[in-house]
Amino acid sequence: MAHRIAVIAGDGIGTEVMPEGLRALDAAAKRFDIDLEFTTFEFGNCDYYLEHGKMMPDDWFEQLKDFDALFYGAVGWPDKVPDHISLWGSLLQFRRQFDQYINLRPCKLMPGIKSPLAGREPGDIDFFVVRENTEGEYSSIGGKMFEGTEREIVVQETVMSRTGVDRVLKYAFDLAQTRPRKKLTSATKSNGISITMPYWDERVLEMAKQYPDISVDKFHIDILTANFVLHPDWFDVVVGSNLFGDILSDLGPACTGTIGIAPSANINPEGKFPSLFEPVHGSAPDIAGKGIANPIGQIWSGAMMLEHLGYKEASDAMVAAIEEVLAEGNQSVLTGDIGGKGTTKTLGEAIADTI
Amino acid sequence: MAHRIAVIAGDGIGTEVMPEGLRALDAAAKRFDIDLEFTTFEFGNCDYYLEHGKMMPDDWFEQLKDFDALFYGAVGWPDKVPDHISLWGSLLQFRRQFDQYINLRPCKLMPGIKSPLAGREPGDIDFFVVRENTEGEYSSIGGKMFEGTEREIVVQETVMSRTGVDRVLKYAFDLAQTRPRKKLTSATKSNGISITMPYWDERVLEMAKQYPDISVDKFHIDILTANFVLHPDWFDVVVGSNLFGDILSDLGPACTGTIGIAPSANINPEGKFPSLFEPVHGSAPDIAGKGIANPIGQIWSGAMMLEHLGYKEASDAMVAAIEEVLAEGNQSVLTGDIGGKGTTKTLGEAIADTI
Ligand SMILES: CC(C)[C@H](C(=O)O)[C@@H](O)C(=O)O
Ligand SMILES: CC(C)[C@H](C(=O)O)[C@@H](O)C(=O)O
Repeated sequence: MAHRIAVIAGDGIGTEVMPEGLRALDAAAKRFDIDLEFTTFEFGNCDYYLEHGKMMPDDWFEQLKDFDALFYGAVGWPDKVPDHISLWGSLLQFRRQFDQYINLRPCKLMPGIKSPLAGREPGDIDFFVVRENTEGEYSSIGGKMFEGTEREIVVQETVMSRTGVDRVLKYAFDLAQTRPRKKLTSATKSNGISITMPYWDERVLEMAKQYPDISVDKFHIDILTANFVLHPDWFDVVVGSNLFGDILSDLGPACTGTIGIAPSANINPEGKFPSLFEPVHGSAPDIAGKGIANPIGQIWSGAMMLEHLGYKEASDAMVAAIEEVLAEGNQSVLTGDIGGKGTTKTLGEAIADTI
Repeated sequence: MAHRIAVIAGDGIGTEVMPEGLRALDAAAKRFDIDLEFTTFEFGNCDYYLEHGKMMPDDWFEQLKDFDALFYGAVGWPDKVPDHISLWGSLLQFRRQFDQYINLRPCKLMPGIKSPLAGREPGDIDFFVVRENTEGEYSSIGGKMFEGTEREIVVQETVMSRTGVDRVLKYAFDLAQTRPRKKLTSATKSNGISITMPYWDERVLEMAKQYPDISVDKFHIDILTANFVLHPDWFDVVVGSNLFGDILSDLGPACTGTIGIAPSANINPEGKFPSLFEPVHGSAPDIAGKGIANPIGQIWSGAMMLEHLGYKEASDAMVAAIEEVLAEGNQSVLTGDIGGKGTTKTLGEAIADTI
């Protein structure tokens, strides 16, 4: 039975790394005899918006809902469309409408990649950030009053529901249980944000009762970001709200020197709707069009997609191929951001060949 | 004329570093012939709460409002009082009721302090975080519904006013103008937080028109935290909302290896109410009572207080004394967190002597 994958490349370097993601997936599919069927969609990018006045056609949900997964590049081009319009018109719609309430992002120090942190070696940093992906600080409730006057005021709600908080915590605790260290860290800010965050803490305490074998700690987000830099080896599974998870899953990869190569999965664990796989990096208008973007984030996201579809072995082989090519350190293959002289294509081809 | 300083040590190591802060201030006052008059208050700590059921007496505002400054240690002891109660009952009240709308925190790589970032030397990192300190994400509007049921939901408003945003931006632009690089970075998240944050961006653009000589850029908070680690040399003055400023002013000092020694000023620039000076570190219950806490954050905060009171030379002398003692690197003087074998007192005395 074929797995039907919807492919949306998006903007900027999204369109450049996507072909390499597909190349690597094709190689893995061939080697492990997996039947992947790709369908490309031309919406969900800023040029589409300029032409149609919206990021996606009205029936996008119908068009996409029966796919087995969405493979996404990157979206946003602020000179064409303000970010909050392009993002709320595409990526953030998928996350919400397809109830992809888990955003899972590995932070792992890879061979051949230099960490900006002094003295850290591969093996020292290896954790997951589990981010709530549908509610919290990213709400659409709020507005502006006394517009254009000195008294102007804007408000925006943060919204947390028991359903929303408990299900992401459950996922994170379950994940911690599969890990050797069985450790979970909760990101909070209950000393300052005095209504939603104490509630988050309360639910963590409650959920922890069901997982007596997991060791749980919590840090306020300010000191937690500091500890990512000072003690990245402390962490195993880190769970946070939509905003805190967002911050930590950029900072974590930065600490492993891999902001340009980190992958992410937006998961609907029940499989009621398709999950979405995308690199952590954005569309990077500043380097777009040059063919120099690092395709590893896209390829690694493809590996997460294969694991999600049930092909753990194929997924591991893709990650192993990335590690092998990085460890080889061939200058003419690697892209400039990781010290090479190659292109998006040379690096993508090398990984596909290795697979 | 004597400057009247209210002294509140707070909890935990706050009570241990405070005497060293006062010792250093006494030394500076003597050398530069400044008349400082200290009055100690026994409220604003968790033991006071346990005894009186509140963090401060009802007339705290009256008792404190005519002082020239507040010199604060650290507050919070979660085993005695939940953080959001102790903090909202003391520190956050001062910031709000005394309209200390600027929170100013220097991030500077000091001699003798090892940065956790590879290859960074003193001089490489030297910037200020300017944080909005009275509104934004730290609001007291919100609540809980369907309590105790599956449908439970909590909401909390973020509130930004034109007055509140513009005045912190103005302060930050003015500060940037005094710096050689004349650069200002705005922390935003307007791609995800779609109401308040685009408003913040709008006001930055508007304010920038009045400062044509300042170069302005902005980053979303997620990639900004990454850039603190990857490119700390990019920054000069960074301005952010209450929450973003909170995060960046812990992360920044962490990148300079100085989370335990960083100072901060909570300023009411008009001088209508007293400003408050406190170390960035918290009350650290885990190491309290051992006499090993690093007193530099308290002492450096004292230096910021002297500058605020108009004694730039004395303030510089205090910072120079800190740098000198750090550069000497005498093991028996320095505290354990910065590689020594000394105590709060040995380090405090060495700095006071140097002043
Ligand atoms: C203790 C806490 C409420 C406080 C804050 O978040 O403002 C602290 O982290 C700070 O930065 O001064
Ligand atoms: C582009 C933006 C809206 C998005 C987010 O904040 O969720 C991105 O930063 C991410 O982490 O996927």
